[in-house]
Amino acid sequence: MDTSERLIESTRALLWERGYVGTSPKAIQQRAGAGQGSMYHHFSGKPDLALAAIRRTAEEMRALAERQFSGPGTVLERISAYLLREREVLKGCPVGRLTQDPDVVADPDLRRPVDETFAWLRDRLAGLLAEGRDRGELDAALDPAATAATVVAVLQGGYVLARAADSDEPFRQAVRGVLGLLEAHAR
Amino acid sequence: MDTSERLIESTRALLWERGYVGTSPKAIQQRAGAGQGSMYHHFSGKPDLALAAIRRTAEEMRALAERQFSGPGTVLERISAYLLREREVLKGCPVGRLTQDPDVVADPDLRRPVDETFAWLRDRLAGLLAEGRDRGELDAALDPAATAATVVAVLQGGYVLARAADSDEPFRQAVRGVLGLLEAHAR
Repeated sequence: MDTSERLIESTRALLWERGYVGTSPKAIQQRAGAGQGSMYHHFSGKPDLALAAIRRTAEEMRALAERQFSGPGTVLERISAYLLREREVLKGCPVGRLTQDPDVVADPDLRRPVDETFAWLRDRLAGLLAEGRDRGELDAALDPAATAATVVAVLQGGYVLARAADSDEPFRQAVRGVLGLLEAHAR
Repeated sequence: MDTSERLIESTRALLWERGYVGTSPKAIQQRAGAGQGSMYHHFSGKPDLALAAIRRTAEEMRALAERQFSGPGTVLERISAYLLREREVLKGCPVGRLTQDPDVVADPDLRRPVDETFAWLRDRLAGLLAEGRDRGELDAALDPAATAATVVAVLQGGYVLARAADSDEPFRQAVRGVLGLLEAHAR
């Protein structure tokens, strides 16, 4: 891995572990095994590096989700596969937790990839739910856009509850609950 | 308000705005108009003050929720009233956002009131849902504990989505979605 890559990967890990405020340029350099001069050769500073890190994490998250969304089975089976996918629950969502960082939320450039990721996820799920409804797999009374927002919120809130409890049990229970509610709409 | 009170209230505001890592003892003193000596007279340090602040915020959150839970109407009406209550959505949940702070999650004393608040909320909602099921207001197929975790997760995740979008629209949509799913279980 070249220095620029190592700097991005170190920033991603630190943002996930420590948040934006808690991540210093010095910590990034130490983890990447790179000097200060080398860091400023590749990036203009912490915001620039964070942007590259957030963009890459967001891309990965989309690609992972798309694997289940475009997989085999009914719409509900694909959404279940997405919700039940293996996750490092106690680490929290690497994208979602950035929203709790006031410096990220206050910076339109840093917030944009976070916003776009959730907007994409909600649109994609709303499309799937509409597809399921049109195919007669799901009840016509189901509101695709609102239900899609609920599904994304359950995952993000599940991470919050899991971290509060220091256990992934509340995450799994919240997912089981929303799947139960959705299954009641299957025809 | 006496100095101890002002220190607690300032810590509560700063934790909500800046998080635990981003809140310095100096910022607390400045906001409270208190000197360093006065702060250490009342509290042993930042963790001690944060604990008092988190406990008070958690108590307030319970009292607010209890107002809707013990209000008039069917179980679904009371849960709707709770979900649709006025909230400062873009500020995020003062309890939930603490879970994104690694120093809070790593400290069992600081994490405890956060954990207890969500555990109480889930238990209380599970009890309400079981009551609704036993009274015949809700479908027997509804799993009270899992559905309660889903409802709490939707609120917490709704805050995350709202902060990402810098708009309360995704929060409202997620709440509308889960209410739609619950209403399909009303008999």
